[in-house]
Amino acid sequence: MANEYFFGVDLGGTNVELGLLDGEGAIMAHVTEPTRTHEGPQSLVERMAEACRDLAKQAHVPSDKIKALGIGSPGPMSMLEGKLINLGNLPGFNNFFLRAELSRRLKLPALLENDANAACWGEFWLGAGRNANDMVLFTLGTGIGGGIVIGGELIHGSDDNAAELGHMIIQTDGRQCTCGQKGCVEAYASATATVARAIEALEHGRESKMQDTHRQNGTLACKDVFDHALAGDPLANEIVNGTALALAQICVSMRHITEPEMVVLTGGMIKAGDTLLNRVRSFYEEMVWKLKPEPMDICFAELGGHAGFIGAAGLAVHAYKHHPQRLYPSGT
Amino acid sequence: MANEYFFGVDLGGTNVELGLLDGEGAIMAHVTEPTRTHEGPQSLVERMAEACRDLAKQAHVPSDKIKALGIGSPGPMSMLEGKLINLGNLPGFNNFFLRAELSRRLKLPALLENDANAACWGEFWLGAGRNANDMVLFTLGTGIGGGIVIGGELIHGSDDNAAELGHMIIQTDGRQCTCGQKGCVEAYASATATVARAIEALEHGRESKMQDTHRQNGTLACKDVFDHALAGDPLANEIVNGTALALAQICVSMRHITEPEMVVLTGGMIKAGDTLLNRVRSFYEEMVWKLKPEPMDICFAELGGHAGFIGAAGLAVHAYKHHPQRLYPSGT
Repeated sequence: MANEYFFGVDLGGTNVELGLLDGEGAIMAHVTEPTRTHEGPQSLVERMAEACRDLAKQAHVPSDKIKALGIGSPGPMSMLEGKLINLGNLPGFNNFFLRAELSRRLKLPALLENDANAACWGEFWLGAGRNANDMVLFTLGTGIGGGIVIGGELIHGSDDNAAELGHMIIQTDGRQCTCGQKGCVEAYASATATVARAIEALEHGRESKMQDTHRQNGTLACKDVFDHALAGDPLANEIVNGTALALAQICVSMRHITEPEMVVLTGGMIKAGDTLLNRVRSFYEEMVWKLKPEPMDICFAELGGHAGFIGAAGLAVHAYKHHPQRLYPSGT
Repeated sequence: MANEYFFGVDLGGTNVELGLLDGEGAIMAHVTEPTRTHEGPQSLVERMAEACRDLAKQAHVPSDKIKALGIGSPGPMSMLEGKLINLGNLPGFNNFFLRAELSRRLKLPALLENDANAACWGEFWLGAGRNANDMVLFTLGTGIGGGIVIGGELIHGSDDNAAELGHMIIQTDGRQCTCGQKGCVEAYASATATVARAIEALEHGRESKMQDTHRQNGTLACKDVFDHALAGDPLANEIVNGTALALAQICVSMRHITEPEMVVLTGGMIKAGDTLLNRVRSFYEEMVWKLKPEPMDICFAELGGHAGFIGAAGLAVHAYKHHPQRLYPSGT
């Protein structure tokens, strides 16, 4: 497969990451393209196609050696139809048939995948999960996303929206989530929610050095909360513990649901390093049952922001090798 | 497959249900045998084998037409080794190689499966889930068990103990569960926990007609709580709502995790009928996000206490047809 090549595209609200990989996962070329949502989907898909052609040129890969294309995008989506559905961060892209549009321009069979699933597949293929058969990934950013691999395959659910793991409910009638539900883990442990809980505590008059940062900057970042926790601020510490506890709780639940060998954490929040990871691990050990030894590893992702386009390309490789019916149009 | 036959055995703490089915699921013969745990595993496995031979005789099925044997048992277990591990209700059965012992006596390839998974497969094969590809089952009894079918296959996890759905945590630092964890759904919504919550409320001096039942009978059954709720007792109503809310919450979470087409409820508690089902459905509708229409059906199981042995036999059929490597010894 080293002489066959695959494009991976990771669509985000700010940037699109595009890469050309060989079938073993070697990155031949990679580029970041601004999304510029205001220019609309047709302009974007033109620029995506152009960027892909440039990558092939740059890597001296002839087009007949390029076999397929994988696209990761925020959900919800219809994988079957290759269509974006209702993207909060990408107004104007609703009901856009991204897969067909890019497939047609590049004359390549393509697949469309949820971006968290694509990142999950990237880590499973070449990153933290490369030795696992069963893994779960949580993306910790503005929101919380997820991906689940069972027996070496991503799961998609009955309507392509499985693994929306940020919306597992961890507290009955709990905090309001932006999704409309109450008590979602996202409402406690996303970067946004971590900051929101800190600001609420400050507004309730709790003493903390975060107050000064908040006053000076007019705002508070998730990094500030973690930095103050690391520096020993008791309130920041409490807030970070709340985040870690919520994440540990869904690790315990996932342990009992799909029983992965490992849970991989990724997204902006993992920059907090051991301040986050050690707490999640230690709360997990404290919370999980002791009926049976539980050799589940909780660790950080290894591919950083590249996981999305690597995973998208990897899904194209996997489909090309094992499930050609997943590529559209199949048999191109 | 109508001329090939399969045994299904469902081991419980009180009784063992045994059946002989054809490959299409027709029940040729069925018997209930007391478990008599105090006589030990060797005696039980002898009686199981004897009962199976009797079923074949009774149904006039010659032994060369019987192809395989499926066994459902309480977990935890090692499916790979066919071994029971740590059974609370079956002292003396720890580390017992049930699959090999019964396989040897009946000279049939066999598989061992978690009893809730077996019941799940029964409902998926011939019961409430027979038209689904993706379903989740919750068994509501003394404890809460579960089973998950994804794309037409039961999932087992990395160490054979996936779908222990009673131990999803629905409340951070919540009620103590018998498993050692806190806040498990089982600690709120099992029959035992439903009664426990009612009794606690009575002990806290709450007024209720359940008080009279409790005094008269010296105890309170789960059925009493549901009966009083149906009769309009406010406290009983509140307790039943708590049970239904906890179940609705895990339905919402499972919707976002494996995205099944349907959730099937089974076990003793479903005798409560619409008093339970309507509330779970209505809390679910209230709680679940509205970002995307969610056509997930929540319904009751259809096979009653037969689901376990039917599912165990069905798993033997499925393995025999599609996954012969799952039978031990394979190729017998």
